[in-house]
Amino acid sequence: MTDVPKTHPRYLSLTLRDTIVAGVAQGITSVHGLIAHGRGEAFDYLIGETTQPFAIEAIHAAAAMLRLAKHPVISVNGNVAALVPDGLIELGQVLNAPLEVNIFHTETGREQRIREHLLKHKARSETSPANVGVEGAPDVLMPTTEAQLSYIDSNRKFVHPDGIFKADVVFVPLEDGDRCEALRKMGKAVVTVDLNPMSRTAQQASITIVDNVVRTLPLLCKEIREFSDSTAADTVSQYSNEAVLKKALQHISRCGNG
Amino acid sequence: MTDVPKTHPRYLSLTLRDTIVAGVAQGITSVHGLIAHGRGEAFDYLIGETTQPFAIEAIHAAAAMLRLAKHPVISVNGNVAALVPDGLIELGQVLNAPLEVNIFHTETGREQRIREHLLKHKARSETSPANVGVEGAPDVLMPTTEAQLSYIDSNRKFVHPDGIFKADVVFVPLEDGDRCEALRKMGKAVVTVDLNPMSRTAQQASITIVDNVVRTLPLLCKEIREFSDSTAADTVSQYSNEAVLKKALQHISRCGNG
Repeated sequence: MTDVPKTHPRYLSLTLRDTIVAGVAQGITSVHGLIAHGRGEAFDYLIGETTQPFAIEAIHAAAAMLRLAKHPVISVNGNVAALVPDGLIELGQVLNAPLEVNIFHTETGREQRIREHLLKHKARSETSPANVGVEGAPDVLMPTTEAQLSYIDSNRKFVHPDGIFKADVVFVPLEDGDRCEALRKMGKAVVTVDLNPMSRTAQQASITIVDNVVRTLPLLCKEIREFSDSTAADTVSQYSNEAVLKKALQHISRCGNG
Repeated sequence: MTDVPKTHPRYLSLTLRDTIVAGVAQGITSVHGLIAHGRGEAFDYLIGETTQPFAIEAIHAAAAMLRLAKHPVISVNGNVAALVPDGLIELGQVLNAPLEVNIFHTETGREQRIREHLLKHKARSETSPANVGVEGAPDVLMPTTEAQLSYIDSNRKFVHPDGIFKADVVFVPLEDGDRCEALRKMGKAVVTVDLNPMSRTAQQASITIVDNVVRTLPLLCKEIREFSDSTAADTVSQYSNEAVLKKALQHISRCGNG
């Protein structure tokens, strides 16, 4: 798949990159998505490539908010579909929430290929030893022209009436800023995962997990499972996204000084 | 070419990205190169998307070093070929130095397509009103199996005997760390352009211009033209790459605090 020699000092990082490049080959990830992945890599490098305390704090609040949601929905783009399909399926199961395909660059057939990719992983999940007989493998919803988001011009405005359109909390990892803003303007809470604490998405989301989505999803699923409803409301009301983003920025600055 | 709406707040940045995506479509840029471009975008964002004083200082020293070189060579990969073909040709003309194609991921025929892309721009340069009758449009050299770099495992070890192999100074923008290290071990001076001041390339090059190559090349060509040989040696001997990298890091850290 790659000609990176094993002696290359960044062999592991370069090999991980191949996962997202494979997403392009499969027609799931857009080439623009690769550039976004590179931006994420740079910020992850600055963050230290581990889940930091500010991310743990945000994951804890996100677990509470998603647990309390009446109609949570998981928005899926081409990057997360390629990187963490099983994590998305697991999150949908834990929350009993649908996945909804929503992408920016709509090369012909890409939305459908993302759906098929998720269904393949969902089918695998449903028949896995741990899940046999367990209900709740999530639906995969597709954009429609019946329901549209306000405050947005791009293709991403087309959503599913039973999905993002009626959601009270939307989990939108690796998001673009304008859709995050539109969802907030429509009164929805947004939980995002973004390695850049200065991005518009990070600044506008209700809860921003500044971490690599590959590390975040297992932790988030675990937290949601363990949360008690009685403490969730307090956790959400006490959470300050502004304070968490400030800690993330301070961390990056210290790294730059080191 | 793109479906990014003009009302999108990052329209310009997204449109610029299309240049490098087009490089992929033309078979010049590797998909891995797109990820690297994204990393660069992130660091450029932190740097402020302008050429900062630490870059000006490095460009000044690089102009002196390249001017004094007996056998300078310009190494070209798929990203710079897509982003700045005319700038590379101009630099080759100013220095009377060959371009040499040298890439990490060697998908079939990509080296040849980069060469053809450069020759197209070189031909255009040779017949442009400013250059008619001017000699020195640079040669485009290709890797050979006759000459190999030491200290390197990947495909990048294959070089041209009259190019990188015998160069005393190599200009290698958007480089990967292991080749930079190999070139230094072989006693060659390396001038690089890298937006990440912490990268191995940045740390190991003789002169690191922490800037976007799109902004750097015109400034570098102008400086080389204006340099007098009598001051060039002093400029090189007084330059400290370590000090310049430290300034770049401090700048990024201040940005993080802002």
